[in-house]
Formats: sequence, C-alpha cells, structure tokens
Amino acid sequence: MENNNNIPPPVRGFKYSGVHCGIKDNPNKLDLGIIYSEIPSQIAGSFTTNRAKAAPVILGEKRIKKGLAQAVVVNSGNANACTGPLGLQNAQEMTEDAAHALKISPELVLVSSTGKIGIPLPMEKVRNGIRQAASLLDSQSVSQTAQAIMTTDKFIKIHAVSGSVGKIRYQIVGFGKGAGMIEPQMRPPTRGWGRHATMLAYFMTDLAVGAKVLQTIFNRVVDLTFNRITVDGDMSTNDTALIMANGLAGNRPLSLNSPEAKAFERCLEEVALSLALKMVEDGEGATKVVQILVKGAKNEKEARKVAYAVGRSPLVKTSFFGQDPNWGRILAAIGYSGATFDPSRVDIYYGPVRIVASGVATTLEDDEKAHEVMKNPTFTVTLDLKKGKGTFRIWTSDLNYDYVKLNAEYRT
Amino acid sequence: MENNNNIPPPVRGFKYSGVHCGIKDNPNKLDLGIIYSEIPSQIAGSFTTNRAKAAPVILGEKRIKKGLAQAVVVNSGNANACTGPLGLQNAQEMTEDAAHALKISPELVLVSSTGKIGIPLPMEKVRNGIRQAASLLDSQSVSQTAQAIMTTDKFIKIHAVSGSVGKIRYQIVGFGKGAGMIEPQMRPPTRGWGRHATMLAYFMTDLAVGAKVLQTIFNRVVDLTFNRITVDGDMSTNDTALIMANGLAGNRPLSLNSPEAKAFERCLEEVALSLALKMVEDGEGATKVVQILVKGAKNEKEARKVAYAVGRSPLVKTSFFGQDPNWGRILAAIGYSGATFDPSRVDIYYGPVRIVASGVATTLEDDEKAHEVMKNPTFTVTLDLKKGKGTFRIWTSDLNYDYVKLNAEYRT
Repeated sequence: MENNNNIPPPVRGFKYSGVHCGIKDNPNKLDLGIIYSEIPSQIAGSFTTNRAKAAPVILGEKRIKKGLAQAVVVNSGNANACTGPLGLQNAQEMTEDAAHALKISPELVLVSSTGKIGIPLPMEKVRNGIRQAASLLDSQSVSQTAQAIMTTDKFIKIHAVSGSVGKIRYQIVGFGKGAGMIEPQMRPPTRGWGRHATMLAYFMTDLAVGAKVLQTIFNRVVDLTFNRITVDGDMSTNDTALIMANGLAGNRPLSLNSPEAKAFERCLEEVALSLALKMVEDGEGATKVVQILVKGAKNEKEARKVAYAVGRSPLVKTSFFGQDPNWGRILAAIGYSGATFDPSRVDIYYGPVRIVASGVATTLEDDEKAHEVMKNPTFTVTLDLKKGKGTFRIWTSDLNYDYVKLNAEYRT
Repeated sequence: MENNNNIPPPVRGFKYSGVHCGIKDNPNKLDLGIIYSEIPSQIAGSFTTNRAKAAPVILGEKRIKKGLAQAVVVNSGNANACTGPLGLQNAQEMTEDAAHALKISPELVLVSSTGKIGIPLPMEKVRNGIRQAASLLDSQSVSQTAQAIMTTDKFIKIHAVSGSVGKIRYQIVGFGKGAGMIEPQMRPPTRGWGRHATMLAYFMTDLAVGAKVLQTIFNRVVDLTFNRITVDGDMSTNDTALIMANGLAGNRPLSLNSPEAKAFERCLEEVALSLALKMVEDGEGATKVVQILVKGAKNEKEARKVAYAVGRSPLVKTSFFGQDPNWGRILAAIGYSGATFDPSRVDIYYGPVRIVASGVATTLEDDEKAHEVMKNPTFTVTLDLKKGKGTFRIWTSDLNYDYVKLNAEYRT
C-alpha cells in the first residue's frame, strides 16, 4: 500500500475535467466536472437515506442498478433538490447532454449536484458547461473535478493508494467534498430506508471486479467511514458515493472472499476514511476532529446511540472548541442517548487521560492533562460503559463561531 | 383569569427566601433559596428522564411519592450531578439541615440543585446558607428565590394567575430557571424512562387539591409546556418541576373531571407555558422564539419526530438567526426525521406566508415576505405534510454566536 495524497498517479482509462460554467457567480470557481472511463465500467454506489431525495439521487438510484456506467457529471452551486418534476427532467437532460458530447448511451451516465436547495438549475449554463467539460477530459485532471464539486469546502479532498493482485498493480483514487449538512447515512438503492449530509465522493480504480462484489465491499466501506462522521447532524438530500472499476488492470475479476478482495477492501477503506476525515476537518468552521469511541455498551446498537448523542451534542461540541474537558456534558448526553448503563460505572478518557473513573472525577491534575490533550487538532474521547461488549466509533467536529457565521446567511 | 407577571400577589401560607452563601464566587449573586409552606402541602412533580440523574433528583423522586411536602431547598452554582454516593449524602443532608432550621420532618423537604456538574457541593457554605435562608422566609420574597436559582439566565422568570372555585379565590404563582441544556422530557417518578434540560420550575397554590389529582393534572400540563421546548437538544441530569397545593383557600378538594379542575388546569397551563417560553427566550444567546407547528402528519408520533428534527437542526436554527427563510434546510430535516411523507405535497409557512406549496418554492416576493416575518422576535413556522391528521407543536430558539461564546468556556 503506497500513499500519495497530493498528486495521485493516473488510474488507467479514467479521464477528468472541471470548468466554470456560471452556476456560481464567482468566475474563479469551478462548478461543473465530468468523470469518464474510456470503456464501460462496473459501478456501485450508496445514496442518502433522506426521504426528500434530490432529483440526481432519484435518477442515480435507478441507473446504478445495471452495475454499468461510463461517466458521471457533477455540478456544484445548485443541488437540484426540492425542485419537483422539473428537477428530474433537468437531471435526465444533463445525462443526455453528457452522453451526446461523449458519444455514449445516456443510460451509462450518472449525475450529482450539490449546492443551494430549491432553485431550478440554470440549464443553458449547464449545457454549455457539459460541452466544455467533455472537450477538456484528461487523465491528469482529477484535481480539477475535485475542485468543481466544492461548495463551502476550504480545501480539495483527494486520496490515492495502489495495490496488487499477484504481479498486477492497480490504483485507487478517490475524491470528495463535504463541509456542512454532514451526517451521511447512505445506503445502496436496493436496501430499505436507513437511519440518517451533502457529501459527495467518487472512487476510480482499474481493478477488475464485478458490480455485485464491488457493491458488497463498498457497502461495508461506506458504513465504516462516511456513515461514521457527523458535523452538524443534518443529513443532506444529495449525499452520494460512487465507485467505478473499469478492469483495465487486467486481473481476473475478484471473488468476494478472496485474500485479494480483502486487500482491496482495506485499500478502499483507507481512501474512504481519509476523505471522510477530511470532511470533518473541513466541517464548517471546525478546528477539531474528535473520535468518539464507545466501549462496553450492552451491544453495538446501544454503543451507536451513545456515540451519536455525544457526537451531536451542541454542549459537548462547544466544549471541544473551548478545549474544556467538560465531561459532565458527556455524561449527560450518555444519559439521554437511550442506552442502558449505570452512571456510577462509566470511565471517560480524553486521549490517554482518564478523567472520570466509575462515574466520578479523578483529579484536578487529570483535568489539566485532558485540557492539554484537547489542544491537539485531533484526539479521541473514549467512553467505557463497562456493561457489555458493544463498541462503536464515530468522528465529529467542534462547534464554534464560524459555523454560525457560515450558515446564518448562506443564501444572501 | 387575571395575569400579574411582575409582582405576583402572595399565595396564602407560602413563604420564600434567597441568599448568597458562596457557592457562586460573585457576592452579588444569590445562590440558595427556600420555598416553605406553613402547613404540610400536597405535592406533585416531574423529573428528568436522563439516566444520569443528579442526586437531588434521585432523592426527590423518592420523597414525592408520599404526596406531601412542606419545603424545597434549591441551590444554584453546583448541580450536585455525577457526584456519586457523596452527592446523595449531601442532598440528604441539605434536607436534614433545612428540616432542622424549619422545625419540620426531613421527609417533608425536597432539594433541587443546578449549575456545574461533577463537583462536590461546598457543604460548609451550603449549611450556613440554609440556616440564613430559613431565617429570612417571607411571603413577599418569591422573586428572591427565583433569583437564587438562576445560572446562565439573563432574567428572572415568574408568572402568576388567580382563579376561583365558586366564590373562593385562589392564586397560582410559578417561577423557574433555564437557558441552556434545555430539552426537558420530564416524567413523574412512577412512569418509565421517557424520551428525552437544566430547567427548574416551582408552582405554589393555595387551592385544595389531592396529590393524585394534582399529579394527573400536572403531568398533562408539563407535557404540553416544558416538554415542548428545545434550546440545544441537550437534556439535563437535573430537570425538575414541582407543584405544592396547601389548600389554604379553603375549597372542597377538587375532583379530577370537574369543571373547576379543568379551569385550574387551564390556569396552570398558562403559568407553565409562560415560564417555558421565557426559558426559550432566554435560551443561551437566543434572539428568537420560534414555534414549529406540524400538521397533516400520519399521526402525532410522526408529527413529533418532524417537529424535533426541524427544531433541533443547527442549519435551521442558524437560518432563524440570519432571518433567512431557507426552507430547503427544513425540507431536508423533515426528510431525515424518520416520518413518512411525500416531499411533493409539503407546504411550508413562515407566519402567514406560504413559501413552499406542494414541495416547490412559491415566489421571490413570498421569500421577501417570509424574511420580514422572521425579523420578529417570535414567529411560527407551519409545516403541512398533507398526509394524515397528526399534529404537534414545539418551541425552539435560534443558534448564534452567543451560544458558542457562553458554552465554549463555561467552566473557566
């Protein structure tokens, strides 16, 4: 496994582009991009479980079922969400325009949108953008597409690794966006409504792997990465994660439980976790990335309840910003999480510092040490309920002035 | 029904006091108070459903079961929460000290605490405070006790009404505190764990009403008032609401379904709702009190889910601060609430202005009108799902810079 965070090596057969077509007012901001595979590619994906799904999600859920795709068009600045029948028509038209420009079938094109909600897409600009983007496709331009999907993001998010199947080397490159309205709970379209961001993430690999195996692996990876982050607890109408595997590495397609498939899953999880944590790091106004690790809960479901109650609590999140080990707020959040536990048994750690032992504060010295831990940009809060074997971890950000500033007047 | 918000008339037989005993550093801030009835009084109450209950809550739940009490000791500055066995011992000792000073049985004394979590009470100061407070009891001093329970509150919260049973006039006076860690879901001790503040509220009346009838009426009132507000979605370990009815008005004790009991319930609800809305108005940093009214949900349970998803959403709450009718965030929150609905049928109103009709935006003019509505300190957002007859309403605040400021370094 080799990392290359900044200038990922090209993945055989994939081309990218990013342009400014005027969806955003600022001419220096890219707002439309295309991902293209020279040959039809196996595809798997996961989408928001929000019941108010944006038009591109509705279309994507249909298209992905065939397991085959060749291009994805993505725009930022406008989410094409809550736009009614016109929104669906516009999403469909975007795929047709891209198919036409790329000389492929519209059925092989997916579309994603992110940005403002409830405003019809400026289709004249979008059409011009698609034509331009299709003409600029290049194997070296992944960072252009990564820029073109940014909304309130402060930095672009790309991560790449390479792996091997026997002597055959393959590449995985992933990029994403996401800063606010982040608490993805994505599910593949074939599964029911799940629980609870706009986050978008795209993965390209030249590995040969069939769509079904790809979807199974991708589900597990999404569940352990994107579905484990929260910035504001607000789940988006547009969350989308897609992976395309065009097989140009030339290996024999992976079988599900093979060591090669497991190695691929580990590589993919590394890329996805890197992107997910970059989203928390870029969480609107965030200054901290905090892992909430729950241990000793009755079961995983209860551990999950505790992790989210603590990770979403405005009082806990403001204390992270203040670097104040205010563990009473954490214990209160555990208390209303719905999990069964005995407060007099709980241990709470900030990093390696145990600040609460069996429900009561340790020493003032520990309090000071915990405060030191919290000065780091990233740290772990461990909660041990000492009740059972349930464990769960999520990543959350702090809550501070900049979140308010960014969101109080977003539309004006 | 007569209102008297500022100088409530004395309620026969009740006396109050508030002192500074040093739990708070600032010598100008009161931090301990006593409510006392000259004769043993019928009592009913409702407590936090947080599983990490503070010591005074645990003790209060036991004591209240007899339906009889004569005094309540309340301190601010220290919540006596997450303090282990020592905390319980200290809570018990507070009731004993008060009982001794008042020459009554400790079993007739309840205690409430609010403030910092996880720090043992400074019992020497508390003991002196109780002695002093017991010596200063006065029928005119309700506002002293109301001051003594304030923590981050900016103003005192008192409301009084009077009613009559036949020719007999009775008084109800209520006072409370609460600004942060507010999302009470209180239940009487005899019921199971409920769903999901520190808020404290005390009601005194000279009406004659038995403890059982009083508890039944109080449950309904608490459910429609305190259990319908949210500031930050964080439920406290200490929420407590108590009502004492000493019967000195001299009426025949009320029977449950009598017109007189209904009239009393209406009076009580008026007092409780006034206090609950004052808590939202004083919500840490709040500039807005917004009623979220959900109509047309499949049932009340689903209407409740929608109301809380919208009322808790940081993105919706920051848009209230920005006075930006960003209805897309509302529709997204409905979408992840868990309620069943068709996004293409939803109507959204800001005050009387319908800004979304059947899932799509109306006009830019309406957007401007909605912005005007949002300039008011209080307004209603109505969400009509047009699916069934389920309805639910809650009250929430905006989220802004001052909330962050107040909470980022609370302990330092």
